[in-house]
Amino acid sequence: MANKSLEICFSPAIFEAHADKEAIVVVVDILRATSSICTAFANGVSEIIPVNSVNDAREMKNKGYLLAAERDGFVLDFADFGNSPFNFTSEKVRGRTVAYSTTNGTGMMKMAAVSHDVVIGSYLNFTSLCNWLIKQDRKVLIVCSGWKQRFSLEDTLCAGAIAEKLINEGGFTSVCDSVHASLDLWKVAKSDILGYVEKAAQRSRLRDKGLDDCIPYCHTFDITDIIPVLRNGRLTAL
Amino acid sequence: MANKSLEICFSPAIFEAHADKEAIVVVVDILRATSSICTAFANGVSEIIPVNSVNDAREMKNKGYLLAAERDGFVLDFADFGNSPFNFTSEKVRGRTVAYSTTNGTGMMKMAAVSHDVVIGSYLNFTSLCNWLIKQDRKVLIVCSGWKQRFSLEDTLCAGAIAEKLINEGGFTSVCDSVHASLDLWKVAKSDILGYVEKAAQRSRLRDKGLDDCIPYCHTFDITDIIPVLRNGRLTAL
Repeated sequence: MANKSLEICFSPAIFEAHADKEAIVVVVDILRATSSICTAFANGVSEIIPVNSVNDAREMKNKGYLLAAERDGFVLDFADFGNSPFNFTSEKVRGRTVAYSTTNGTGMMKMAAVSHDVVIGSYLNFTSLCNWLIKQDRKVLIVCSGWKQRFSLEDTLCAGAIAEKLINEGGFTSVCDSVHASLDLWKVAKSDILGYVEKAAQRSRLRDKGLDDCIPYCHTFDITDIIPVLRNGRLTAL
Repeated sequence: MANKSLEICFSPAIFEAHADKEAIVVVVDILRATSSICTAFANGVSEIIPVNSVNDAREMKNKGYLLAAERDGFVLDFADFGNSPFNFTSEKVRGRTVAYSTTNGTGMMKMAAVSHDVVIGSYLNFTSLCNWLIKQDRKVLIVCSGWKQRFSLEDTLCAGAIAEKLINEGGFTSVCDSVHASLDLWKVAKSDILGYVEKAAQRSRLRDKGLDDCIPYCHTFDITDIIPVLRNGRLTAL
């Protein structure tokens, strides 16, 4: 059990300081990328191809892929739809391969690809994800996607929730200050997650754009058992 | 009062996302750089010249400067002394110019020099610093030096303490998630700061090297009124 160490990285900008090719990386981007990805798999998507740049997204569209793409909350004009989890309906995505590009989350996935495995975390697949992580005898690094390199409360809370379960039920240990901070913030927030998230900056950004209808949904535990995993540049169900 | 906004940056790696040439930057590196700098000024140092690289530190020593320099907690062999605040005694530093190079804090100071002003924050000059910040009609950005780009608890707690005072007594407001997190962690920790800091990774690093004797001192409020400020690459008393 010596490998069951746990770290949390608060920003893609800090990833290099935590990077470890032996670790399993859990990418968290609660509002909204990783919640949308879990929804897509729950609704039967075949594969999701994370795409970094707007140009790459356009190229995937030209190649005939279904394209979900947004920047700063706005749908790219040539995309089929944007980043709300409510877009990834069974009617749209079942059996399809979707190309996907977002402001923060998809870039983080590609950066993390140096790791042993990269999996997608959210409240929506929380218990299944934690139970799988506990079964691996391997270091876990939870990476919060944040907002344009900045720390984000909503990602940190989910990281704290995962950390709590891994430590309490999985025998994980940590000497990482980010883990202690996330655990304490989760303890403060967990009796009223949605109330706490009211003060998150991303909450305000989404409200300003009329995109905040998905927030309660994105904080719902366990709508799916599927753990999306990044293999050869594509997300598939583990 | 529209300018009284407040941000906290959790790592030098995230500084670019927060950088604002109109802001006053408060650099915090509680264990130990900014505590040592405040101690040096309390003991009558004339100026401190932050130096980034080991080579630059050696060059300053060769030029005849008194040199305080460490890496990873160890004194550089050609330095006069290391980074403990207890080194910066009145006998050694009064009236002198000291060249100073540390693992985290001094690099952060040079990076922040693009800002309107860069001042040094610690518990040791807490009240004087906060009262001065409150008098300025200007955005404040508190930068936690952390450890090799990583988030650090002890810096975050001090940032939270400063934030609490600026918001409660100075009319500052914030939409920055790092501020909300720091405030909540400070609330959790403030009734027993030293007990809370026991779990900080830097606490363990210092203990492992026998350097933890300074930790209670570094969490003492208000031993000095002096606010060190960076002007033309040199720290002087404001």
